[in-house]
Amino acid sequence: MPVSSTAVYQEIQNFYARQMRLLDEGDTQAWAETFESDGVFDANGLPEPVRGRENIQSSARKAWETLTAEGIQRRHWIGMLEVGEHADGTLLARSYALVLVTKRDDQTAIQTSTTCEDVLIRAGETVQVRYRTVRRDDRPDKQEA
Amino acid sequence: MPVSSTAVYQEIQNFYARQMRLLDEGDTQAWAETFESDGVFDANGLPEPVRGRENIQSSARKAWETLTAEGIQRRHWIGMLEVGEHADGTLLARSYALVLVTKRDDQTAIQTSTTCEDVLIRAGETVQVRYRTVRRDDRPDKQEA
Amino acid sequence: MPVSSTAVYQEIQNFYARQMRLLDEGDTQAWAETFESDGVFDANGLPEPVRGRENIQSSARKAWETLTAEGIQRRHWIGMLEVGEHADGTLLARSYALVLVTKRDDQTAIQTSTTCEDVLIRAGETVQVRYRTVRRDDRPDKQEA
Repeated sequence: MPVSSTAVYQEIQNFYARQMRLLDEGDTQAWAETFESDGVFDANGLPEPVRGRENIQSSARKAWETLTAEGIQRRHWIGMLEVGEHADGTLLARSYALVLVTKRDDQTAIQTSTTCEDVLIRAGETVQVRYRTVRRDDRPDKQEA
Repeated sequence: MPVSSTAVYQEIQNFYARQMRLLDEGDTQAWAETFESDGVFDANGLPEPVRGRENIQSSARKAWETLTAEGIQRRHWIGMLEVGEHADGTLLARSYALVLVTKRDDQTAIQTSTTCEDVLIRAGETVQVRYRTVRRDDRPDKQEA
Repeated sequence: MPVSSTAVYQEIQNFYARQMRLLDEGDTQAWAETFESDGVFDANGLPEPVRGRENIQSSARKAWETLTAEGIQRRHWIGMLEVGEHADGTLLARSYALVLVTKRDDQTAIQTSTTCEDVLIRAGETVQVRYRTVRRDDRPDKQEA
């Protein structure tokens, strides 16, 4: 798959910054809209993939409420991004993702180190996630589960 | 506010890399010059905003000398950058910022996880910070203080 | 040295993402090919610089095998990138680099915080490392060793 253009690479950097901040700051409705309506969130930290925007939203909402009740601010850092572009405009974005957690008046800790692989599609002036695959580095055995 | 062009986004990435390295490696004079002469550094970790380039410089210098005396190398990582551009060329840059500290012959620790919001202005061939707002994730209560 | 173009800056971001993932996921042959045939890897964590692609490969291979035997997934994060471009096309890329390690079913830890300075050359449609200089923040005394 050909490497994306400079403009698309930068667009995806900006997309992730916005997308993760929506999640981290609790706007789970806008977060869910960054997925296709029948998008999938697949992670080896989950019992099974979360399917559809509505489930993605409610799952994120529940996690957000638990964290907030515990006084925890979570931050997702995406880095080491590679973007490939298919002829039909579909994108494959591979990255590393860290989840950091900070408790009120406490230290910041690394919750987990993962890789993230997204199939992204064009949606008007932005992109949406069609299929996200997250793999935690501490659970390599479950990568194929 | 419209999203910045690809060229401006990359320029700001490069700006932060240079700016933070100046601070981390003790060139606090050059660091201060990345702020407007009456620029402001506002952080919820500080008792009040630091106003003006001279105060920003002396404040950074004092922190640098304390760290150096303790054998600590500090590193600021900026990530998850979003850049918006006003019609008049003023920029709004939102990012996550981590402060890492490494003591001689010791482990590296995360000192703090923050968000950074900068109002940037054009200054010749570069940009300068007009107003920086840093919010530590461990002190959410002070966000409005 | 003039700051690189937007396209080159993005190309180098993509280069590091690919290069580090090759190393982190054990494709040390492809990793070594991102260096010039007589490229040098110089680090203040090493007794002496590693010279030549073959030695760079075997050194990386040995480290990979040790980590794998211990059930450790290592991840290199490059950030805070500055890229300068000489008139002859040679590039100077300065960055911060973190090494993170995750043991099976265990926490992720920061192994080390470093700076990385690469002299890069054009090699067909990609770039290669001619000379890499890595400095660990916990060993400042050895920077000139």
